[in-house]
Order: sequence, then structure tokens, then C-alpha cells
Amino acid sequence: MRQFMQAQGIAAFIVPSTDPHSGEYVPAHWESRKWISGFTGSAGTAVITLQQCGLWTDSRYFLQAEEQLADTGFKLFKDRLPETPSIAEWLGRILQKNDKIGIDGWVNTVSEVEILQKKLFAHGLEVVSVTDPFETIWEDRPSIPQNKPFILPTEFAGKSCRDKLIEIRQALRQNHADGILLSALDEIAWTLNLRGDDVHCNPVFVSYLLVTEHEAALYILPEKLHEKTRKYLADNDICTYNYTEITRDLSRYSGATLLLPDPTNFCLFQTASTCMNVIRRPSPVSLLKAIKNDTEIAGFHAAMKRDGAAMVKFLKWLKEAVKDGKETELTVDRKLQEIRAEQAFYKGISFDTIAGYQPHGAIVHYEATEATALPLKPEGFLLLDSGAQYLDGTTDITRTIVLGPVTEEQKTDYTLVLKGFIALSMAEFPHGTCGTQLDVLARQYMWKAGINYGHGTGHGVGHFLNVHEGPHQVRMNHVPAILLPGMTLTNEPGIYKTGRYGIRTENTMLTVESRQTEFGNFYKFEPLTLCPIDKEAIRTEMLTLEEKEWLNNYHSQVYTQLSPLLDNSEKEWLKQATDKL
Amino acid sequence: MRQFMQAQGIAAFIVPSTDPHSGEYVPAHWESRKWISGFTGSAGTAVITLQQCGLWTDSRYFLQAEEQLADTGFKLFKDRLPETPSIAEWLGRILQKNDKIGIDGWVNTVSEVEILQKKLFAHGLEVVSVTDPFETIWEDRPSIPQNKPFILPTEFAGKSCRDKLIEIRQALRQNHADGILLSALDEIAWTLNLRGDDVHCNPVFVSYLLVTEHEAALYILPEKLHEKTRKYLADNDICTYNYTEITRDLSRYSGATLLLPDPTNFCLFQTASTCMNVIRRPSPVSLLKAIKNDTEIAGFHAAMKRDGAAMVKFLKWLKEAVKDGKETELTVDRKLQEIRAEQAFYKGISFDTIAGYQPHGAIVHYEATEATALPLKPEGFLLLDSGAQYLDGTTDITRTIVLGPVTEEQKTDYTLVLKGFIALSMAEFPHGTCGTQLDVLARQYMWKAGINYGHGTGHGVGHFLNVHEGPHQVRMNHVPAILLPGMTLTNEPGIYKTGRYGIRTENTMLTVESRQTEFGNFYKFEPLTLCPIDKEAIRTEMLTLEEKEWLNNYHSQVYTQLSPLLDNSEKEWLKQATDKL
Repeated sequence: MRQFMQAQGIAAFIVPSTDPHSGEYVPAHWESRKWISGFTGSAGTAVITLQQCGLWTDSRYFLQAEEQLADTGFKLFKDRLPETPSIAEWLGRILQKNDKIGIDGWVNTVSEVEILQKKLFAHGLEVVSVTDPFETIWEDRPSIPQNKPFILPTEFAGKSCRDKLIEIRQALRQNHADGILLSALDEIAWTLNLRGDDVHCNPVFVSYLLVTEHEAALYILPEKLHEKTRKYLADNDICTYNYTEITRDLSRYSGATLLLPDPTNFCLFQTASTCMNVIRRPSPVSLLKAIKNDTEIAGFHAAMKRDGAAMVKFLKWLKEAVKDGKETELTVDRKLQEIRAEQAFYKGISFDTIAGYQPHGAIVHYEATEATALPLKPEGFLLLDSGAQYLDGTTDITRTIVLGPVTEEQKTDYTLVLKGFIALSMAEFPHGTCGTQLDVLARQYMWKAGINYGHGTGHGVGHFLNVHEGPHQVRMNHVPAILLPGMTLTNEPGIYKTGRYGIRTENTMLTVESRQTEFGNFYKFEPLTLCPIDKEAIRTEMLTLEEKEWLNNYHSQVYTQLSPLLDNSEKEWLKQATDKL
Repeated sequence: MRQFMQAQGIAAFIVPSTDPHSGEYVPAHWESRKWISGFTGSAGTAVITLQQCGLWTDSRYFLQAEEQLADTGFKLFKDRLPETPSIAEWLGRILQKNDKIGIDGWVNTVSEVEILQKKLFAHGLEVVSVTDPFETIWEDRPSIPQNKPFILPTEFAGKSCRDKLIEIRQALRQNHADGILLSALDEIAWTLNLRGDDVHCNPVFVSYLLVTEHEAALYILPEKLHEKTRKYLADNDICTYNYTEITRDLSRYSGATLLLPDPTNFCLFQTASTCMNVIRRPSPVSLLKAIKNDTEIAGFHAAMKRDGAAMVKFLKWLKEAVKDGKETELTVDRKLQEIRAEQAFYKGISFDTIAGYQPHGAIVHYEATEATALPLKPEGFLLLDSGAQYLDGTTDITRTIVLGPVTEEQKTDYTLVLKGFIALSMAEFPHGTCGTQLDVLARQYMWKAGINYGHGTGHGVGHFLNVHEGPHQVRMNHVPAILLPGMTLTNEPGIYKTGRYGIRTENTMLTVESRQTEFGNFYKFEPLTLCPIDKEAIRTEMLTLEEKEWLNNYHSQVYTQLSPLLDNSEKEWLKQATDKL
């Protein structure tokens, strides 16, 4: 690396955790930061100078990073601690004025680079985008994924690729743009009704898609295309080009107005800017994708039934199994995956399971390993956040499971979470409302007890796509995207008491029309997730009549929908789990 | 005007309703739009070309404008109707490419001019800021107000002008600015602990204030300064210059970095930009002013007691008086003002009273006139939104008063408003929360009935200053300013059924510390306003136990605080009005 840096005349090189498509998970080919530092956490930035090197990561990974970085020469910088210098401050301190800082513009978004430039400029340093050093220095580097995408039939997708292109072109005209370059892999998969398995948990494939009024061009490694897929694309008038030719081809559109949605990488932006009029704006495809069509909604309902049945089988098993004392956070995750895998259309998990027993439940992004997995005892809470990919839908559900006796404080907190969860579930709101406006509904009761949680309350869920999708969200920070009928949304308030326990209850919901009045159109939510909410930790006296009614109705719906998929003993168990409060 | 335009080489001139200080009310000197068009409404823009002229106003004023513009040559353009062209569209249609559109940059803010430039540019037109044409063409133009400001003693203000200047200079250093130019009259009055009566309802005086690290310069007409005020300013090291010399003097600061908060007018901005490094950012004085000190808070409490006692005397009188059938929307307003005027420290009303009986209650900005005032009958609702200026505080209160029998629908709507009002009153929230996040608390119940209101839920209230102040607000649109202890805030949800009735219940509240936990600092609201909420239209069965308790506690507090200021019969009336539900 330092030879590369000297040859390029740069004093430092910054290696982020991202890839050219800014996804949540990164294919092995782009795990350069892991390779160079040895640190395997999902978030972290390595910085190498000619004399020193450092790695910045957040509190989730302090312990792990310390162990993995020992004897590597990398100094650990604990992000967001007051004594920790930022990357710009550190570089400003150890480098000379006017030194050049190298980045690979392919794996940084435009917005990230702009922020970095500003910060480094304040310390007299300059950012330069150079070629990818890992092409030469990483000897056995994994290739760009070669997996072959497959067609998602219209019976699952509900709308043909041709019709989606018509909608995208309408959006282009509304934005006065001649074309759009899509880099977000879920937007490309949605547009083309193709799915892949290049990325962990996300059924997408590595590519770019350029759509103009008269053309649609898919940039993808040629070896990834089945003959069948090739024909399908040709039938839909979609040309294919090599993934590596995207920059070269952009010059063909010289003079055109190009929409570049936000997670575009810096190199593509630079190339486009030199010859085109670039507009940076949220992707219209993100919004089109977020509003599910009737087939997708029907698919979600069907997938949620199978997923709910799997959850019931699992919960019944778990409540018994913990008594033997042989289960751990890891074994129960495996068991749940086994049961889910038996369901029709199952295509894998939709994100890494969070199975956090008692104190581990308070670690918001906890992922159990052989080294950390706690044995489960017949007491306290197991927080279980999990989900699956099915051909007809994606699921995301959290239940906090009562494994045995819990304290009065645990019951109170559990009920505060439940009250917030029910308040958001029951919300009605006028057209134009964004998630930030509704967020307080889920927090209001715990706020009155001096409690809050640091994560968002809800996010969109893709249709057999990424479990996290926008543009809408429900969170404390302002997100301007409004909630519209057809949008999926999770509802997941929680309480986390460090070192003691964590509680979260999460359903995926669907936004639907509610009523039209002289005051406009009103919308509400319907639960998509079907699974009992553990009643054993509820303080019934803290619930209003309305809240009890909501829970009883939900549970009665859960029983009606799931019981046909269960055997007699499972039905019996579910009957009790969904009995009226 | 057209001679002026021809001499200046401009094809059109735009006359807005604003003045150089962008206040809510405008001194007569700057009422040029009223003078040239004859239209007296508070909102409207006149546009004059060499051949035609038009006036744009919103739905509140369609009728009035139509009457007042008849035979003036001004064509009425009804703003926000789909068929109405915008000013830019209209000018684009009737003028030639590259024509120049004149404005007086003194009475337009920078932001307004920037938007106008963009819109007119799209139609090939150019904006030029010229001298004020009304200086020459308006013969008997009223002068700039000559009233003399007076000193607000520190026993009312709580903090000396000297200490406030220290705080402002700290804010300047935090913003890396050498100085700030204040144009907002309430910010100047707050900083200097001076009050005036240049503007209707707002106790402010026309001036600019320039604060740098070592200087403070007040630009004000010299005839406005009492000898006493002159000495007070000199004692506080504040230089005074003529109001008209502000542009000339800015060049003295050539090269400096100047903070220009948002309601700066275009001329000042242009002048400053030519010689200084201008930073446009929200005014730090707005935030300093919004957080009331202990003396101001004590003053608010005292003023609210006197104002509440006046309201009780009025309400007792009103409930009797309507039976005789002689009262109107106007007479009751006069009666209320009479009773308020008897209170100590009274300095006038804080905004034009809204007294809307039945259908008029549904007109959000209704102001009764001799021509429109409805007689009050012993039935239905009177919506009464009023407030006063006292030396020790400003009040803003709305009560919807039951004059006699009301319908079941009216009772339901009244209770929906009350539930929202109580929910916001009872809110607790962590540090960092902004008003947009809390807004839904006031709307949630009516939203479930398909009802909404088009105005904000709350605004700050000045301390013997403007009844509307920022930077915080509670509304559906995003306002990033967070709520902090010491901030005043109104809580005023409403329901408006066009042609039938309007309901609004409003208290002014104070933001206070609530608790500190492992999850951070939490805040809550305390009511400042003391006045019974009419129980006669409450559907008790729609209230939860908690809501009833809140109302009973509030009413008991109202009785305890106000009864010492009342005679026996008034006490008796208040006893019943505040009895437990």
C-alpha cells in the first residue's frame, strides 16, 4: 500500500467499509478494509499514512477491534468519544499542509466525499481520487460476484419490467431529466424484476442501470447472464453492457441532463459531471418501489402467514426447550432458521438474527458468536429480531420472549413498549404526513417515565428485496418523505437497560386508505406480521380499554390466519397465546 | 408611478405588504400597497406595469378585495386557486423578454428577492432594486414613526442590556463572526431593554442594531430619543446614529465577517455583501430572547393572574349578557378590552381579537367589523382568541365559550380538541425534541375522526414583546429549533367546520425541566394561562381518567390562583366553572 501511495504521491489513503453501490452488506470483493486491517466488524474506516495507520469504529466494536487490531500496527480510534480525534483532525495533526489524501472514488458516495473534502480542506489537506490500490496489492482478492440473477415472474412482482420502465420515464419527464443512472442494487432488481444472490441477505446482483427516454442499459459482468435472462432482457428492449464499461459509455450521453440519485459513487458523479448536466435528487425509483402493488401486497400477506406459522412453531418449542437448559442464543437462532427453511418459497434470512438474552438484549445491534453466546435460562427476556426472504415477500419481526419469571421493572418497561407499539399501530393521519410526525406516538409513554431509545421507530421493507428500504422512515430526525398507501413500515419501539435487559416489539405494517372527509384523505396502518405478542410480561392495569381491544383483535386475527397452517398441539398452544387479556 | 417607472427604465413594479423589518404589522409609512391599490387587507401584493395593474391576495380577502378594487383599474388575482397565474407567470405573459422588474429592496427580504429572481428569470425577466418610488409619488405619506421608546427596568426584564450584549458577543464568537446586524424589531427591543409603540400590538420601535466585539450601534431617528434614553444608551456604551445612515456606515466594517439573520432586507444585504463576508444564519438573539429568565417567568405568572382574573370577570358577564340579545362580536371584544385595561401594567392588546360566533368561528383569521359583526344568541359557540401586553408579560388565550345549547356534533368536536390540548399539555420529551415531533399529540384524536386543522399548534410568546416569536414552533411542517426550558409555547388545536362553527382551546405554556435519567434530560410543560375551560360542551365519557385528572388539577390551580383577585360573586361563579368533572 505504501509503495502504491508513494507512486501516486499521496500522504495518506482512506479505506471505508462501503462498495460502489452503498448497500448495507458488502460483497467480499470490496471488503478491502477488512483485508488490510484484519478488523472484521461491519462498520469502520482504515486510514494509512506513510508512517502510521489507524482504524475508526463505533462503540459496538470497541472490544472486537481491540482484539483483532492487536499487533497489526493499526491504532484503534474509538469513534464519538470526546477524546477521539476525527480522521481529518488526526491527519491534520500528523501531515504537512497541502499533502494529498487518496481515496478510491468508486467506494465513496459523492456526498461522503464532499463532506470529507470540506473537513480535510479545513486542515489544509486535499482529497484526490486515485485508482483502486487493492487491484494490485491484494493478491488473492475475491472477484466481483459472478452469481447469475434470476427472473422474478410477474405473478410475484405484480407489474412487468416494461410497465416499470414506463413509470420511470414519466418520472424523468417530471424531473426534466433525459436519463437516470441507478446504482442502488435493490432499485435495479425491482425495475428489472430480477433477483440475485451477490449480497448477504439482500437478493440483489451487482450492476448499474441507465434509463433514458428511449434506452435502458444494464451494466453487468457478462458471465452473470444466463441465456434465459439475456433473452428476457432483450425482449424488454434492455441492452446489456459490461459492468466495467459504465464510465466509458457515459460520454455517449454528452450534453444530456442526467438524474443522479444520492448513493451514486464519486467516480461516476465526476465522469457524468464532465460531460452532462447532472441533477442530484432522491431517486424516483425508490418511491415507485416503496408503494407496493396489489400482487406484492397479496404476496406479503401469504409470506407473513407462513412466517408467522414458523414463528409459532418456534415459540412453542422454545418455551419448552429452555427448561432443559441446553439452548443458547446461537442454537435457538439455528432452530428458527431450520423451521423457516421448511416454508414454501423460502430464500434465506433477510438480515442477521439478533438473539439477545437479558443483558445482550440491551445491545441494539448484537450478533451472537460462539464466543459470546449466552445459555438461556428459564427466566427473564430473550429479545429476538429476525426475518426471512420469500419469493412473495420479506419479513422482519421482533418479539421479546418471556422465558420465565421477570421483574416488576421488566413488566413495566415491557408494557410501556407495548403501549407505544399499539399507539403507532392504531394511528390515523392525513395525506402529507411524514414519519417524523408520527414517531412520538411510539415514544410518548416511555418518555413520561424518562426512557428513550436511540434507533428509529420504523423503516420500509422491500418485497423480496432489502429488509431496509426508504424513502420513508419513522424516526426522531426529520425525514421529509411522506407516508402513502401501499408502503410497508415496521413499528419497533424498544427499551434498553445497559447490562440488564432489552425489550423490543416489532411488526411490519401496511399503509392503507382510511377515509376521505372535508378535511382530506386519511390513512392508517394494518398489521402484516402475524405472531402472538407475549402476554406474560404485560401489566394489564397499565393498558386502556382501547389498547386491550386492539391487542385482543390482533391476537384473534393471528389465530384465525395461522391456525390452518398448524397441527393440533400447535393450535392449542396458539389458542392460549392469543386468548383475550 | 408610471412616470417613475419610465424614468427608471422598468416595465413593472412590485409593491409587497412588508416593511424593512419584516414584522407582522406594518407602520403606516410603509403601507404603500394599501395607498396605491386602495385594498386594506393585511396580506396582498400589487403589481403595476405600464399598461395594467393587478393585486394578488389569499382567500381570506377575496370578498373585501373585490369590493375595494372595483373601479380602481386593479385586477384581482385570487392566490392559490389553480386558474390564477403567479405574478411571474402573469408578467412573463404580458411583458417582453429582458424587461426589467423594479422592486424596492428595502421592503423585501433577501430570501424573498432570491425566490422572485429565480421565478422571473425563468420567464426571461430581470429584477432590479430601485429607490423607493413612494418617497416622491405619495404626497401626504405618513412619516416614519416618531414615537419615543422607553426603558423597561431590569426589575421587569431580569437581565441588563450589558449582560445581553455579553451573551450576543459570545454567540458571535461561536459563529466566527465579527458582528451582527439586527433588523427584527423585537430582537432590538429585547437586547436594549427598550420598548416602543411604533407598531400596532407590538411594543417595538423602528431601528437597526449593529453589534460587534467592541461596539454596539443603534440606528434610529434622532427625534425618537428622549434625553433619558440617550443617557441610558450612552451609559451602556451604545452609540446612536441616524436611522438613515445604516448603509453608509456598513462600509466602515469593510472586510469583516457579518452575521445577517434571515429577515434582513435585500438592500442591506447587497450593501453588506459588497464590502463584507456575509454569513446568513438564524439569529442567535432569537434563541436568547426565547429562553425566558427567572424574572421574566415570574412576570409572566403575575401577568397571567391579572389577565385570568379579567377573563373570569368577562366570562361571568358574557354568559349573562347574551341572554338579553344585545351583544355582538364587536361589543364583547370592547367589553373584554375595558376589563383588561383596568388591570395593573396593562399596555394594550397583543393582537387583534378574533371573536367569531358560530359560522365566523370557522374563519381562522376572522376579524369582526361593523359590517360583519354577528349578534350573539344564547346558543352555540363563540370562539374568542385574545391577548394583552403588560409590562411584565404578554398573554395569548383562546376559549370557545358555550353561549347556550350546542349540538351533539359540536360537543364531540369540542372534546376532540380538548383531548389533543390535554395530550400536548401533559407531554414529556427528551432534550433535542423539536415542535414538529410533538405536533401529532394535539391532532391524534381528531385525525381518528377524519378531522384536521390548517394552522400550527403552537408558537413562542414574547415577554412584553411580540405575541408570535420563534425560533421554536409546534406545527406539521418541519421547524428544526428544539424546545428548551424557559421557552414559552402556545397550545392551540382547533376544529373548523366551514359555514357552521369553529372551536379552539389555547393556553400559553412554559417549558420546564422534568427529570434526568440514564436516558438523558427530559422536559415538560406547565400552564401559564389561568382561565377556566368551558365544561358545558365536554363529553365526559370521551375523556380518560388521566385527562379528567389533568383538567380537574388545572381548574383547581385556576381557582386557587385567581380567587384572591375576585369579588365574592365572581369567586362563586369561578368555583362552579372550575368544579371537578
